[in-house]
Amino acid sequence: MTAPLAPITVLDLTHVLAGPFASMTMADLGAHVIKVERPGSGDDTRSFPPFKADKSAYFATLNRGKQSVALDLKADADRALFDRLLERADVILENYRPGTMEKLGYGWETLHARYPRLIYGAVSGFGHTGPDALRPAYDMVVQARGGVMSITGEKDREPVRVGASIGDIIAGMYMLQGVLAALYDRERTGLGRKVDVAMLDGQLAILEHAVAITSVTGTPPGPSGARHPSITPFETYHAADGLFVIAAGNDALFARLCDVLGLPLAEDPRFATNPARCENARMLKRLIEAVTIDQPKAQWIERLVAAGVPTGPIQNVAEAMRDPQILARNMVVDVLDAAGKPAFTAAGNPIKISGMEDPKTRGPAPDLDGDRAAILDWLARDAS
Amino acid sequence: MTAPLAPITVLDLTHVLAGPFASMTMADLGAHVIKVERPGSGDDTRSFPPFKADKSAYFATLNRGKQSVALDLKADADRALFDRLLERADVILENYRPGTMEKLGYGWETLHARYPRLIYGAVSGFGHTGPDALRPAYDMVVQARGGVMSITGEKDREPVRVGASIGDIIAGMYMLQGVLAALYDRERTGLGRKVDVAMLDGQLAILEHAVAITSVTGTPPGPSGARHPSITPFETYHAADGLFVIAAGNDALFARLCDVLGLPLAEDPRFATNPARCENARMLKRLIEAVTIDQPKAQWIERLVAAGVPTGPIQNVAEAMRDPQILARNMVVDVLDAAGKPAFTAAGNPIKISGMEDPKTRGPAPDLDGDRAAILDWLARDAS
Repeated sequence: MTAPLAPITVLDLTHVLAGPFASMTMADLGAHVIKVERPGSGDDTRSFPPFKADKSAYFATLNRGKQSVALDLKADADRALFDRLLERADVILENYRPGTMEKLGYGWETLHARYPRLIYGAVSGFGHTGPDALRPAYDMVVQARGGVMSITGEKDREPVRVGASIGDIIAGMYMLQGVLAALYDRERTGLGRKVDVAMLDGQLAILEHAVAITSVTGTPPGPSGARHPSITPFETYHAADGLFVIAAGNDALFARLCDVLGLPLAEDPRFATNPARCENARMLKRLIEAVTIDQPKAQWIERLVAAGVPTGPIQNVAEAMRDPQILARNMVVDVLDAAGKPAFTAAGNPIKISGMEDPKTRGPAPDLDGDRAAILDWLARDAS
Repeated sequence: MTAPLAPITVLDLTHVLAGPFASMTMADLGAHVIKVERPGSGDDTRSFPPFKADKSAYFATLNRGKQSVALDLKADADRALFDRLLERADVILENYRPGTMEKLGYGWETLHARYPRLIYGAVSGFGHTGPDALRPAYDMVVQARGGVMSITGEKDREPVRVGASIGDIIAGMYMLQGVLAALYDRERTGLGRKVDVAMLDGQLAILEHAVAITSVTGTPPGPSGARHPSITPFETYHAADGLFVIAAGNDALFARLCDVLGLPLAEDPRFATNPARCENARMLKRLIEAVTIDQPKAQWIERLVAAGVPTGPIQNVAEAMRDPQILARNMVVDVLDAAGKPAFTAAGNPIKISGMEDPKTRGPAPDLDGDRAAILDWLARDAS
């Protein structure tokens, strides 16, 4: 067996994060990804810090294993080459402002008429429809407008941004789901589809609990700091040497937690059920910490793990990147340079699929227009 | 054209969030989802608040449009029914602790031998391999251990949890990507694959910028409050009536921002480039707020939008749910009750695909074992 997307060629016009994140996963699943960049400066992220040997680590990790060709889609010669690429592509991805592809003569209707099997994936700030379709957006604009910031942070303090760019990443992941569903569908119908995903829509789509509460009570939840809004105990606790996490999501787990801590609370009416524990959460946190504060977190984690209670450390990114479980899952990989030597460390592919190799390295990120010759050569060969 | 996953039958043994979130998307894309629940209490989330007419809004929104059958997979009669379902299923999903399916006699190897076309999607806290594979996890355990909490929140304060359960949701989305890639692949090979996704792996996979910084500098970034760690200006600002967001991600946008604010800073060496702006971010924030503090946020947003600068409000979840753009995108839908009346409000499907209807309502969430008769009837008919 081979990688599941090995037969697929992706023409990737996206830049920055949402689109390149999706095409990175496609490359990890075996697709041939041709990154089409604007001549001169290419993808904005080529100039994003931090750098190593003049290469952006940000660009390199997101664009590993892709090819690059620089095309001016307003110039005839480059359009002719782009047309040849379209004939061979299964998927085209773009994250321009809505209407840009139409102005270039490559809108969905035109492409679908000329290349009926081509699948078109678009990700934009607000989508291709609606009153704000033409507004520009970055991650933080949709984290703020979509409601995620309003439930993240501490009560009575200013809202905070989620440290990972989930405005972009969630949208890229939804676009990829749509494209993959369209690829499956094309095997039956022979026809491509257009997938239109908005970053703002993606933020609302992940609010699960907060939407349910707002829907039923009419009152939106606020930020809940480091605890879950409706499960207790499910938060951070102080040990002798710092904070750690306990997440006892049901009565059985709470009983086990009480056993380990030596706290006779499992039958106490103030704590016997999850609604009661939520009601008395502040008191319960202090009763738990009265015990946990006396010993180091590693000891508590070990004892709670032995009892089957979900728990764990709060790790910074360096600690997470050397976590034995993360390493055992091959979730930290080396991105090679052009000479085949490790150049950058990056997150691996979390989709572990039987019958597909999960290599410890990834091919280099391309230089701008660095694969033009190879792509021309590939085009000159017969379509496979 | 029809919904892309219309031919697909999913046997969904998952519960709580990660798995049901993935199968919800599959149902939204047209799949026939049969939820297999344990007799008696069913999915834990049936008892999660808030409730409306004794039904959990949380359960209803995540399990809309699915069928339910209650099966005891240790009882012969129910196993016989489960075997008949396996013969008709394209995909099986489960989020048990690793090894549970093997103990039941339904491990991947067994299923693959008996049903070679069946695709097997598993999501678990730590994955099916590695030293911690058997540990239990909830969302917060992987948000903490995977590094996301360490970059979310305010400097010099305790870390906070991302208000949305991205530990579960990201993992469910990765599993679905793997399953969809396997569905495409099966059209060529005729064979199913196993997809194994860990919640912890998913958290590391979305750290993009933080992994790049750690990889190059060796020093993990800390939390950066409400600002982007390496783009300036890209944060919240005070207007006369509260906070709003400006995200000017490059020099051209910064110049436009300065024009709107009447600030002569675009050529100032302290602010002319993004690295310089990051260096002087605290000063720049105050210079911007010295202007923005005098007028209401709506006015700034209107003027900045007119100038093409990414900006927007910080909305709570109720505001987001009535946002005109969200409504124009059909991102708020009604989940019907059994009588066909609107019962719950839920987030819609962010994957807008050409040729597929995007209905304003969704079918009801099932009662426990509520579809047994319909499922038996469906099994009795010839395989389509």
